[in-house]
Amino acid sequence: MIPQGYRFAGTRCGLKNKRNDLGLLLSDVPARAAGLFTTNQVRAACVDYSRAVLQKGTLRALVVNSGNANCCTGAQGERDTARMAALAADALGVPDDQVAVASTGVIGQLLDMYKVERGIFEAAQLLKPDPKPYMDAILTTDLVEKWAAFVDGETYSPWRPQVPAGSSARVYGLAKGSGMIAPNLATMLGFVLSDYDLEGIDLNAALCEAAAQSFNRMTVDGDTSTNDMLIFLANGVSGVRPSPAQFQHELNEVCRSLAMQVARDGEGATKLVEVRVTGSEDPTRIARTIAESPLVKTAMFGCDPNWGRILMAAGRAGVPFDPAHARLALIMDGEEHVLFENGGPAPFDPKRVSSALKAGHVLIDLRVGEGAVATIYTCDFSYGYVRINAEYHT
Amino acid sequence: MIPQGYRFAGTRCGLKNKRNDLGLLLSDVPARAAGLFTTNQVRAACVDYSRAVLQKGTLRALVVNSGNANCCTGAQGERDTARMAALAADALGVPDDQVAVASTGVIGQLLDMYKVERGIFEAAQLLKPDPKPYMDAILTTDLVEKWAAFVDGETYSPWRPQVPAGSSARVYGLAKGSGMIAPNLATMLGFVLSDYDLEGIDLNAALCEAAAQSFNRMTVDGDTSTNDMLIFLANGVSGVRPSPAQFQHELNEVCRSLAMQVARDGEGATKLVEVRVTGSEDPTRIARTIAESPLVKTAMFGCDPNWGRILMAAGRAGVPFDPAHARLALIMDGEEHVLFENGGPAPFDPKRVSSALKAGHVLIDLRVGEGAVATIYTCDFSYGYVRINAEYHT
Repeated sequence: MIPQGYRFAGTRCGLKNKRNDLGLLLSDVPARAAGLFTTNQVRAACVDYSRAVLQKGTLRALVVNSGNANCCTGAQGERDTARMAALAADALGVPDDQVAVASTGVIGQLLDMYKVERGIFEAAQLLKPDPKPYMDAILTTDLVEKWAAFVDGETYSPWRPQVPAGSSARVYGLAKGSGMIAPNLATMLGFVLSDYDLEGIDLNAALCEAAAQSFNRMTVDGDTSTNDMLIFLANGVSGVRPSPAQFQHELNEVCRSLAMQVARDGEGATKLVEVRVTGSEDPTRIARTIAESPLVKTAMFGCDPNWGRILMAAGRAGVPFDPAHARLALIMDGEEHVLFENGGPAPFDPKRVSSALKAGHVLIDLRVGEGAVATIYTCDFSYGYVRINAEYHT
Repeated sequence: MIPQGYRFAGTRCGLKNKRNDLGLLLSDVPARAAGLFTTNQVRAACVDYSRAVLQKGTLRALVVNSGNANCCTGAQGERDTARMAALAADALGVPDDQVAVASTGVIGQLLDMYKVERGIFEAAQLLKPDPKPYMDAILTTDLVEKWAAFVDGETYSPWRPQVPAGSSARVYGLAKGSGMIAPNLATMLGFVLSDYDLEGIDLNAALCEAAAQSFNRMTVDGDTSTNDMLIFLANGVSGVRPSPAQFQHELNEVCRSLAMQVARDGEGATKLVEVRVTGSEDPTRIARTIAESPLVKTAMFGCDPNWGRILMAAGRAGVPFDPAHARLALIMDGEEHVLFENGGPAPFDPKRVSSALKAGHVLIDLRVGEGAVATIYTCDFSYGYVRINAEYHT
């Protein structure tokens, strides 16, 4: 089902207690590659390292560890990242400068390189065209695995896993989201693979466009990790050359599915909340302000059709609009519940809407005018979020 | 203890079930006045009304209700606000256009004007120079009353209540913060009174300066109410004319004390968190990003000396600085605990710092360079916040 010419491995080298914590991903031939990285100024060593590697545009392999972010670890941390790449290159028989590194875990601790070295050589013996052990190695306290595949015009994912037998994805992605295994960790890692021949297509531009509609439109708590990384590889093994538009569509769909999965599995989340705003000069900013409002997110957790909080958040976004012409609806399971229109509350049955809000996917649809539509993906804000983030005592 | 020439009343007219919900404040003579209002575009009728009244610069009285924000209530809401002012003016024998109106409570419901009218006339019989009944009428689920008085060079408040006998404040303030009595309410109301003769001083400019260092540097959850209002009155009754600098100092201190009290009593808060950032081109933006980070705020609740999250939040503020030269300390009960310096973790005993973090006031002190210092006041983020905001079901 996955694109041709990729092999994966995952193993436990001991950075974590019980789960896989080291992964390798190998393309059988040199792949064209592009990457996007955290905008946080406090960055892990692997972020700067992999950015430099990707500037050359060719990748053979990725080495990933969880359990330690290798961030705020100074010059030793930089040396350790470079050594991870060198060890992986050696174990896999590929050039040093075609290996990218990703880390996720605790901030401020040096990597145990003895464990990492052993893990890399062990993983190199386990490579096969099955992404599951690799996916396990990058997950932290994500509750579920996250993958997306575009096959024959449709997007498949854990929410719709039955890929037709014998069909193959030309574009396939996997990701980890913001679960915490330790107090300083909330990293998003995404890896998207293709066996398309994408000669002549600007992969960085394509990845930016896909991320602008997916990973850059997702928020769990408004915070940005030091280690966020999204990497795309295209090895051309299938020999298929899609039109640029077709390829972009498939990349967009895979990234969008991964972003929705990450938001849905946000820390303590009980549901995916999609905020869609139409009109105004900056609907994205309004949608983002609603999606980051703790008052809106706790109301979603409480299944409370609290339109006042949603309008309040929209109103403080700093984007001009006339509340008297706003229309606000919640859409769950395909049914629309209008809460506010024509400058005043709409008649609705709070109990019925509250019951409908128990759905796993809530769409907040706010229209403040005609024109552009913007969507942001987030989750609700629960006791679980506070528990996960407060009850770790160092 | 309060400035001369002011009288107060509070009563229960029935907008709330058990507590005072209607207040009157009267200056015995016309007072010069200034006001600051919410920047939210979704505004209650009283915000626009009181702003217009204050543009004339003279106030005799304030009428305030809690239990209903009279927001998103259309033309009828506007008529009801004007009628509240007219009723208060009538009951108090002052001109209509010298009465400001403030409301706080549920969004989207019309006021029961029968109750309000009865309450205003009842309150007008109860006026006396004791602010307590008025303070009770504006509180919602604030756990404590909030007041501040500047007396003989010192600031008094509920945290230091023993004002020397026989002394009088020339500048005195009271406020309510963000407690919820109903799902749509999180209003900050502040009223500052003076009996100074402030002839020739620009009161709007003075209030802006004071708010810039206090109410505009306070955040509970990053949300901005539809009804926020800060009003200053100076009736000149004492005949004392302070220097502009002295007056500004007293106003700043009173507002700063009120803002700290509001932050400390934020929804579900167990402690006041003061974020102080030194250096960079915009330390305020860094401090605000830290203060609004749910990951930092849950760590404070969990007494977790989690410097990685604080640096992460600083790094995503969008303000350039070099993490290798950052220094981060927590200060509790006058003792400094350095967590990070010279680009790496500082040696500290996590158990000892965690224990110190149980204090009611935590100062996060981040230095990213030389130069300007900025402070933001906030609180921690607890189960209580989620409970208060999620467990109301309409």
